[in-house]
Amino acid sequence: MVLFQLPNTPELARNAIRIKATLLRNAISECVGTFLLLFVGTSIIAQLILFRGSVNSWVQINVGWGFAITISVTAVSHISGGHLNPAISVLFFSMGALDITSLIVYIGAQHLGAFFGACATYAVYRDAINNYDGGVRAISGPTGTAGIFATYPQSFMSPLGTYLDQIAGTGLLAFCVLMIIDSRNKIPSQAHPLLFGLSLLTIGCGFGANCGYPLNPARDLGPRIFTAFIYGKEVFTFPWTCWFLVPIIAPTVGALIGGWFYILLLGCHVPDEEPEKNNALKEDIAKPENAT
Amino acid sequence: MVLFQLPNTPELARNAIRIKATLLRNAISECVGTFLLLFVGTSIIAQLILFRGSVNSWVQINVGWGFAITISVTAVSHISGGHLNPAISVLFFSMGALDITSLIVYIGAQHLGAFFGACATYAVYRDAINNYDGGVRAISGPTGTAGIFATYPQSFMSPLGTYLDQIAGTGLLAFCVLMIIDSRNKIPSQAHPLLFGLSLLTIGCGFGANCGYPLNPARDLGPRIFTAFIYGKEVFTFPWTCWFLVPIIAPTVGALIGGWFYILLLGCHVPDEEPEKNNALKEDIAKPENAT
Amino acid sequence: MVLFQLPNTPELARNAIRIKATLLRNAISECVGTFLLLFVGTSIIAQLILFRGSVNSWVQINVGWGFAITISVTAVSHISGGHLNPAISVLFFSMGALDITSLIVYIGAQHLGAFFGACATYAVYRDAINNYDGGVRAISGPTGTAGIFATYPQSFMSPLGTYLDQIAGTGLLAFCVLMIIDSRNKIPSQAHPLLFGLSLLTIGCGFGANCGYPLNPARDLGPRIFTAFIYGKEVFTFPWTCWFLVPIIAPTVGALIGGWFYILLLGCHVPDEEPEKNNALKEDIAKPENAT
Amino acid sequence: MVLFQLPNTPELARNAIRIKATLLRNAISECVGTFLLLFVGTSIIAQLILFRGSVNSWVQINVGWGFAITISVTAVSHISGGHLNPAISVLFFSMGALDITSLIVYIGAQHLGAFFGACATYAVYRDAINNYDGGVRAISGPTGTAGIFATYPQSFMSPLGTYLDQIAGTGLLAFCVLMIIDSRNKIPSQAHPLLFGLSLLTIGCGFGANCGYPLNPARDLGPRIFTAFIYGKEVFTFPWTCWFLVPIIAPTVGALIGGWFYILLLGCHVPDEEPEKNNALKEDIAKPENAT
Repeated sequence: MVLFQLPNTPELARNAIRIKATLLRNAISECVGTFLLLFVGTSIIAQLILFRGSVNSWVQINVGWGFAITISVTAVSHISGGHLNPAISVLFFSMGALDITSLIVYIGAQHLGAFFGACATYAVYRDAINNYDGGVRAISGPTGTAGIFATYPQSFMSPLGTYLDQIAGTGLLAFCVLMIIDSRNKIPSQAHPLLFGLSLLTIGCGFGANCGYPLNPARDLGPRIFTAFIYGKEVFTFPWTCWFLVPIIAPTVGALIGGWFYILLLGCHVPDEEPEKNNALKEDIAKPENAT
Repeated sequence: MVLFQLPNTPELARNAIRIKATLLRNAISECVGTFLLLFVGTSIIAQLILFRGSVNSWVQINVGWGFAITISVTAVSHISGGHLNPAISVLFFSMGALDITSLIVYIGAQHLGAFFGACATYAVYRDAINNYDGGVRAISGPTGTAGIFATYPQSFMSPLGTYLDQIAGTGLLAFCVLMIIDSRNKIPSQAHPLLFGLSLLTIGCGFGANCGYPLNPARDLGPRIFTAFIYGKEVFTFPWTCWFLVPIIAPTVGALIGGWFYILLLGCHVPDEEPEKNNALKEDIAKPENAT
Repeated sequence: MVLFQLPNTPELARNAIRIKATLLRNAISECVGTFLLLFVGTSIIAQLILFRGSVNSWVQINVGWGFAITISVTAVSHISGGHLNPAISVLFFSMGALDITSLIVYIGAQHLGAFFGACATYAVYRDAINNYDGGVRAISGPTGTAGIFATYPQSFMSPLGTYLDQIAGTGLLAFCVLMIIDSRNKIPSQAHPLLFGLSLLTIGCGFGANCGYPLNPARDLGPRIFTAFIYGKEVFTFPWTCWFLVPIIAPTVGALIGGWFYILLLGCHVPDEEPEKNNALKEDIAKPENAT
Repeated sequence: MVLFQLPNTPELARNAIRIKATLLRNAISECVGTFLLLFVGTSIIAQLILFRGSVNSWVQINVGWGFAITISVTAVSHISGGHLNPAISVLFFSMGALDITSLIVYIGAQHLGAFFGACATYAVYRDAINNYDGGVRAISGPTGTAGIFATYPQSFMSPLGTYLDQIAGTGLLAFCVLMIIDSRNKIPSQAHPLLFGLSLLTIGCGFGANCGYPLNPARDLGPRIFTAFIYGKEVFTFPWTCWFLVPIIAPTVGALIGGWFYILLLGCHVPDEEPEKNNALKEDIAKPENAT
C-alpha cells in the first residue's frame, strides 16, 4: 500500500539541467572533485594538529588521504577523468590526451576547488582552531595552524632537498597513475580509483615527512591563497621567500619525469595481448617469456 | 562413508518461515542491520575508552566503524537496501526511491535496532565498565562512560559549530553513497558495501574529533535512550540542553544537502554510456571528452 | 636461447602423489590451514608482547589476524572449504553441510594444526622470549609470555562475562561467515576470504580486549596444550580453574547462535533472484521493494 | 574548439623504441620493479627512523611495504612476471618456470635495481640524515642510520635464530605467492598484486621484529653494497662477521621450503575444476566433498 511516493526527482533534474557543453561540465567536475579532496584532506590534517596527537596520528594522514583520492576520483572520473592535480593534467597534455584549452580550464578549476575546500575545512574547524590558538592565528610555532591548509617543509630541509623530495613523490605518483591506466596492464577501470588511493597511501608512508607531500600544485596553492586572508601574506614567504613555488614547480617537473620514466622504461615494452590465453593465469604470472 | 548428516536445515527453515510481506521483511532487515552496526560500533568505542588507550587508539575507531558499515550493509542490502540511517532514508524519500509508509517504518526499525545494539554492548562490557568506574556510572569526567553509546561534543564547540560539523560529515557520507550507487558510474553492486565502508573510514579520519561523528540520527538517539535507563535523564541535557537534537537534525539536513549537491553538480551531468567502447580503458580515464 | 630449464615439476609431483581419498585430503587441508593461521597469528602477538609495544601495537593484532584469516582460507578453501575453526564446523554440521565423520576429522585436524603452529612460533621467537624473561618461563606477570600462545581473560572479568564475550564475538563471526557465503547475497567466491578477514579485523576492533578474542576452540586449546610442555600444567588453571573451557564451549555455542540468528532473521527472507534486472544497480540498492 | 593538442606521444615512443629482445626487456623490467620497491621501501624506514617515531610507527612499515609490493608487481607483471626477489626466482626455476639464463639475468637485474633504489632514498633523505646524525654517519647507536637501507638483527638474536626467522618469513611469502598464482585456486590475475601485498603486510605484522624481515637477497645486498660507500666496509661485518650472508642464504632456502610445502601438501591435491557448478557458490565453500 503506497500512500505517497515522490517521482524520480534525480532523473527529472537531469532532464532539466544537464549540461551538454563538455568543457563547462569538465570544469565543474574537476572543481567539485578537487573541492572534495581538499575538504576531506585538510580536515584530516586539522584533526592531527588541533587535538595534539590524541585523535589522529600519522597513519590517518596516509590512510585518509589515500582513500580521499579514491573517493574524489570515483566521484568525477566518468565526467572529466578525475585529474584533480595540475601536474597530472600537464602530464596528460604531454601525452596528447588533453588539448591546451582543456589544460588551462582544468588547472583553473582545480585551483578554485582547492580554495573552496580549504574554506570549508576552516568553517568546520573554526571552534577548534580558536581553542588551539586562543583566537590569535599563527603560521608556525606552538599555536601555528597554517600547516592545516598549505604545506611547509621541515626546518632542516635545503631548497635543493625540497625540490628532490617533491620530484620524487610526484614522480612516483605519476608513475603509478600511468601504470594503473595503461590498458595493456588490464586493470579493470572500476579498480583504478582504489589503486590510485593505495598508491598515494604508500607514497605518504615513504615521502611525507620532509615537506608534507603536497605533490599537487593546486592542493597547495589554492589553500595557501585562502590562508593569506586569515594568516597574512607571510604564508607566501615562510619559511623562506620562494618556498611556495616549490610545490608548484617541483610536482609538475616530477610528474613529467615519473610519467615518462614509466612510458619509456616499461609502458613501451609491455607485450600486446596474446590471443586465447585468458585462463592460463598461472603461466601468465609465474612464467616470463623465455629468451629464445 | 557418510554415517550421519543432517538435511539442508537452512532451506527447510526458509520454506517454513519465509516472510512474504515486504514491509515487515524490510523492517526486520533494517532493524537487524542497525543492531549489528551499533553492537559492533559501540563496542569499538568501549574498547577505546575502557582500556585507557592501551588497546584501541583512534585508528581502530576509523577502520572498525568503516568495516562495520561494510558488514552491516552486506548483511541486509538484498532485503531492505541497507540504509541503516534515517538521514539516508529521508534522502532516498526525497529522490522518490522510498514511499512515505516505508520511510516511517524504516526509521522506526533503525532506532529499535540501534537501541538493542547498545544493550548488547552494555552486556558484553559490563565487567569492564564496573572496573573502570567502580560501579558508579558517570556521563563524563574521569570515569565517564556514556560516550561509549551516544556522542557528546568537545567542550570548545559552539552550537553553530556542531551543526556545521554534522552537516559536513553527513553531507559527505550522503554524497559518497549516491556517487557509489549511481549506475552511470558503473561500480559493481558487490563492491558497494566496501566503498561505503572506505567512505566512512575516510570521513572519520577528517570529521570525527569535534562531535564524535554520529552522522546518523538512529545511531545516536537509540543508544541515548538506552543510556537514560542507566545514567539518568542527564544524557539528554549534557553538555547543553538541546545537544541531543543536533545528531538528529543536522545529519538529516546534511544528507539532503550532500546528496543533492552530488545529484545537481555531478550526477545530472555524467554522460550516458557510450556504445561499444568497453575495452578502451585507457582513454576512458585519461582522456576527458575534448571541447569541440 | 634456453640453456637449461627444469620440467614442470609441480605437475609431475601432482601426478605422482595426488591424494584421491577425500577425507584424508580434507584433513591435511584443515591441518595445514590452521597451522598457517596459528603460526602467523601467534607470531603477531609475540611481536606485540616481546618488544614491549615498540614494534606492534593493537592495530597490528587486528589487521594481522584479519589478513591471516584471508591467507589461510584462500590457501585451503578449494580443498576442504577452509573452516579452520571447530565452532564453524559444528555450525556447518547443524546446517547439513558436513557429515558427522567429517566433523570429527575436521576438528581433530584443526587442533593438530594449531598445536604445530604454536610450536613453530616458539621456535622463531625463542631467542626473543629468552631475552624477555631471562630464560625463566612465566605464564603471567611482568615476564609472562604464555599469552602469546593461548588466551587469558582480563583480571576484572567475571566467568559470566567471559562467556558472554566469547558468545558475542564468535556469534558475530559466524553471522558474517554465513552472510558472506549465502549465494543469494551474490558475493563472488573469490572475494570470500577477503571479507572473512575484514570481518575478523572488525570484530577484533570491538571484542578483543576482554578475553583476547580466541573465537575458536582449536586456536586456543591446541596452543594451550603446547604451552603445558613449556610453562607447566598451570596453563589450564590460570587465572581460574575452568577458564580454559570457556574458549572451547562459548565459541561453539556462539557460532550456533550467531549463525542461526543470520539464517532465521535474514537468510530465510532474502528474495530469490529477480529475472532480467542485472544491470539496474541503482534500483537494486537504493530502492527497497515497496509495500503494496 | 581544440586549439592545440599533441599527438599520442606514448604510442609514437612505443613504435620507435619498443624492445623486442625478451631477455633484455625482462632484465629492465625486473630492475625497474626492484628499484621502485626499494626506493619506496627504504624511504618508509627512513621516515620511521629519522623522525624518531613522530611520523611513522611500525604500522606504516607493514602497510607501506605491503602496498609497495602491490605497486611494484603491478608495474612489471605483464613484462617479466614481477619476481623482484632472487629467492622467488630460484623457486620458479625449481618449478621449471624459469630457465637458467633467465634466472641469472633476473638476479643480476634485481640487485642492480635495489642498489639504485637505495641511492635514490639517500638523495631524498640526505638533509634529514644530516640533521639526525650531525653529518657523521654511523651504522648503529643513537645516530645510526645504516638500518634504513640494509637490515640488522636484534642484539639478542643467535645466528641459528636469524636463520630460522628468515626461513620462516620467506617460506610464508613463497607459500602465499604459489597459492595466489595457482590457477586451480581461481584468483583473477588482476587481484594477484593486491594479495601479494596483503600477504607481505601480514608477514610483517608477525615476523618483522627479529631481523627486520628482509625476505629477499636483493633487497638486502643491493642496498648494503651502496651503504659500504657511505658507512664503510663494517656494514658487512656488523653485528657479526657473516650476518650479511643470512639475508642471502636463508630467504633462498626458505622460499624453496615454503614453496614446495605448498605444492606438496596443498597444490598437488586441489581438485580440478568441476564441470557446470559455477554458480553454486554456497556449496562450493561451505560443503567440502564428503567422504564416500
